[in-house]
Amino acid sequence: MRIALDAMGGDQAPTEPVAGAVMAARELGIPVTLVGPRVVVSAELARYSHDSLPVDVVDAPDQIDMADHPVQAVRRRPGASMNVGIRLVKEGHAGAFVTAGNTGAAVVAGLFGLGRLPGVDRPALATIFPTAKGHCLILDIGANADCRPHHLLQFALMGDRYARTVLGISSPRVGLLSNGEEESKGSLLVQEAHQLLKGADLNFVGNVEGKDVPRGLTDVVVCDGFVGNVLIKLAEGIGEFTFSLLRDEIGASPIGLLGALLLRPALRRIKRRVDYQEYGGAPVLGLDGIVIVAHGRSRARAVRNAISVAAQAIQGNLTKALAESMLAVPPKLPPLKAEG
Amino acid sequence: MRIALDAMGGDQAPTEPVAGAVMAARELGIPVTLVGPRVVVSAELARYSHDSLPVDVVDAPDQIDMADHPVQAVRRRPGASMNVGIRLVKEGHAGAFVTAGNTGAAVVAGLFGLGRLPGVDRPALATIFPTAKGHCLILDIGANADCRPHHLLQFALMGDRYARTVLGISSPRVGLLSNGEEESKGSLLVQEAHQLLKGADLNFVGNVEGKDVPRGLTDVVVCDGFVGNVLIKLAEGIGEFTFSLLRDEIGASPIGLLGALLLRPALRRIKRRVDYQEYGGAPVLGLDGIVIVAHGRSRARAVRNAISVAAQAIQGNLTKALAESMLAVPPKLPPLKAEG
Repeated sequence: MRIALDAMGGDQAPTEPVAGAVMAARELGIPVTLVGPRVVVSAELARYSHDSLPVDVVDAPDQIDMADHPVQAVRRRPGASMNVGIRLVKEGHAGAFVTAGNTGAAVVAGLFGLGRLPGVDRPALATIFPTAKGHCLILDIGANADCRPHHLLQFALMGDRYARTVLGISSPRVGLLSNGEEESKGSLLVQEAHQLLKGADLNFVGNVEGKDVPRGLTDVVVCDGFVGNVLIKLAEGIGEFTFSLLRDEIGASPIGLLGALLLRPALRRIKRRVDYQEYGGAPVLGLDGIVIVAHGRSRARAVRNAISVAAQAIQGNLTKALAESMLAVPPKLPPLKAEG
Repeated sequence: MRIALDAMGGDQAPTEPVAGAVMAARELGIPVTLVGPRVVVSAELARYSHDSLPVDVVDAPDQIDMADHPVQAVRRRPGASMNVGIRLVKEGHAGAFVTAGNTGAAVVAGLFGLGRLPGVDRPALATIFPTAKGHCLILDIGANADCRPHHLLQFALMGDRYARTVLGISSPRVGLLSNGEEESKGSLLVQEAHQLLKGADLNFVGNVEGKDVPRGLTDVVVCDGFVGNVLIKLAEGIGEFTFSLLRDEIGASPIGLLGALLLRPALRRIKRRVDYQEYGGAPVLGLDGIVIVAHGRSRARAVRNAISVAAQAIQGNLTKALAESMLAVPPKLPPLKAEG
């Protein structure tokens, strides 16, 4: 199944998306449809010898920029690469849509173009986060700033299915982010959500604290989109800060510089292990179709990895798995009592 | 003015608190009253030549442990070192109370024993957080999991005064933690709080994202206690993770080990710069008296630094400054219209 890729998404479009598409096609054999202004994209593609590669172009004359207001931009620009790409998924020409563009717009375009799965009130944005044990999935990381307890339950169920289907974890440990491990800790939202998760068909390990996330205590971390967004951006900021501290302090002495030279391979391995580029982007879960959002600063390798994740999601039949997970959600009102 | 120190607070009590008290008295000339079971504390103190030091002991036969339920423990154990220490402040025998014990219990003991300042609905726990520019103050970090907009306004005003009075910043930049910089971003709570902060007598710089915190974009970061708690614990976890990654990757090769040896002074400087022990504990703001909570794992140096912060708070007349800051809060109901 083809992957539709937003050739105009991200800070370095179309160069890096096109390079990433070529990489995915060449290295992984994944067919990719580049979506963007045909002349621009074709010219970029012409820089590679791509005749034997399964890469083609679908024209989309318009585009949505990082600074655009998601809802307005999606509504007013039907010809934008994001809308055209989503339409390719809707009409069955592609199995998934990948973009490194405006995250909010990607969620909105997916919502308008594909709709929600039955039983999903709010699609969630999930991301892979590096931990001491490997990595975990965190959701929601920004699609929903204000949540109700049953939204967190839906996130938990979708996160569980994503971990099974795409990450290949057989019984994912699901944790609820809180300000204390005890069941009684947490905001009112989290306390109520705790009870719902406890009653759900999940390997629910209870509340986890901020420090438990990088420790890798769970495979799935559930939170509202406000907290999740603060969390991943804080981690990004701390990463930057740590590397700048290392640079400053190491540069302060010749011996430090020599030490740094000797440590370079180790530091490179570390950077690679915590680099978002390796993880391939954030899936939007709960839509009737697969949408993967890569980081706005994605280079070719990150785009390639996002395409690879999209292909795994298609192969694992993610959308069907998510739809099934929602059948486990109890209806919000108790059913009328049956007679007898 | 004397500082009352909980000799039984923290994972390594009474050893480390007593050592910290001796250190503060010896190095900084700060008078300290150790609060705990007289026999135990005096025996510990006898290990130091302290005759010429301004350190004394006040008996408190009971104690509150880390695992105790805050409200129950504070209510049921009037003779606990925490309650006795707070009483010393209430009765004017000490100018501040410092503890490395159960944080929740310290807040509750302060609330019950000292009461709130007029105009403060919820006392907040604040902490110093290392940034690329030095450090910032974050509040609330856990006293209030559920907040209303006017609580965040009170936190902002108190944080501003703390930064002026104790940190010596003349016009602290105050930021509101959100999931986007734009005024329209954030949960409903944050959107409403944004308007209140905008109208207040503050150097309000608007919303800040998670990544802006370690970047040091503001001197004060305002958030609810749930998000604040997740934030500081995540930072703690990432710190641990980073150092364990360094250990693993460096240990993987002899050249790496040599590099690490050469880098040791630089790494030690970094560790020191981001070490909570250097920052001296978290003030509880909004009580009618000064209470400083040090990290549960505090060693002597951290206790000494917490005592030093308490002394600075007394010197800066923190409680009076906080009370004055509350005068700037508009009353929740509009006053009856005056005639004429």
